[in-house]
Amino acid sequence: MPTIKYYLREGLLPAGVLTSPNQAHYDDEHLRRLRLVRALVDVGGLSIASVREVLEVIDTREESLHRKLGAVQEAISQPSPVELDPMAVKDVQAFFERQGETECADVTASNVTHMLAAALSVARSIGHDHFQDLLDPYLEGLKLIARADLEYIATRGSRDDVIEAMVVGTLIGDTVIKAVRRLAHAQVSREVIGEQPPSDEV
Amino acid sequence: MPTIKYYLREGLLPAGVLTSPNQAHYDDEHLRRLRLVRALVDVGGLSIASVREVLEVIDTREESLHRKLGAVQEAISQPSPVELDPMAVKDVQAFFERQGETECADVTASNVTHMLAAALSVARSIGHDHFQDLLDPYLEGLKLIARADLEYIATRGSRDDVIEAMVVGTLIGDTVIKAVRRLAHAQVSREVIGEQPPSDEV
Repeated sequence: MPTIKYYLREGLLPAGVLTSPNQAHYDDEHLRRLRLVRALVDVGGLSIASVREVLEVIDTREESLHRKLGAVQEAISQPSPVELDPMAVKDVQAFFERQGETECADVTASNVTHMLAAALSVARSIGHDHFQDLLDPYLEGLKLIARADLEYIATRGSRDDVIEAMVVGTLIGDTVIKAVRRLAHAQVSREVIGEQPPSDEV
Repeated sequence: MPTIKYYLREGLLPAGVLTSPNQAHYDDEHLRRLRLVRALVDVGGLSIASVREVLEVIDTREESLHRKLGAVQEAISQPSPVELDPMAVKDVQAFFERQGETECADVTASNVTHMLAAALSVARSIGHDHFQDLLDPYLEGLKLIARADLEYIATRGSRDDVIEAMVVGTLIGDTVIKAVRRLAHAQVSREVIGEQPPSDEV
């Protein structure tokens, strides 16, 4: 398998135990690590350098699993190229402060916070300057989703598997959420607006 | 403004009322339509052909607003290039049936349904064949979010503005949700896993 050789050469997989000059034995831990690397590259679209960064975070023994998960989340979030609107940055800071999350309120220190400020900047640039009102209800809905995610990854046995499940759940989950959100809109709009004939003024 | 001229030439904006050979007057309705076209192009990344399609849906008088919103959602969702796993297609159909949404269960008829089946196909291809268990809890969380979205767009006065707000809310909202989901994970994981020191087996 050429991919495995490449990952070995890049130091992303530990070397197997040589059983003959041309054969090496790989155990379950190797397979788990391989699965994680594949998830990061194939699903997350991460560069080899970013994968190495994620693996270093995982392999640091001192940090708690909670902190590891946070660091991996940061590593798999790309910073946005959008120029930030200072008003949007303020909105994001106010939101994090309301949530008691002052630690992550700094847009220069967190890719995730930057991504949020960038999205609100785009909204402001096209005249949507109240989009931040949606942040609190969004967080409520997303906590329900996060509880389901945590249950999903809790069934995994090893540390690599937990983190692999979280990476996959986060990245594939983003697309699943996009699609299911469209269904939720349809159901709620049918309930709220109904199928009555249109009028020009709503 | 060259963009407006371009949109006029492409038939995406109605012509203004000529007030002199070189000047045309544009009213509020023009401005609303311009805002909508910009949201579709700049935020949605839609091609001019797709924008035209969306506008045609909006300008059809017979359909209800609920149906219009659904058609616009379809137009702004790109079909995925991923090859579908028949098991994932079955999972999606079962999900729609559980939700009483048999009308949209066909992956060949809906971009949104196709997107969902594609995401579950990728999950299966890397050994995550229980990802569909997350669909029902995801929908619960997303209904809370959809209610906030519907309230957000309900403050708009005209039909174009409602649809513009929905397009912006859907597309910018997807990124906002991605970022806020990371915060929700952090909050819930702190609550569930806590900050205890790591053990190799979780």
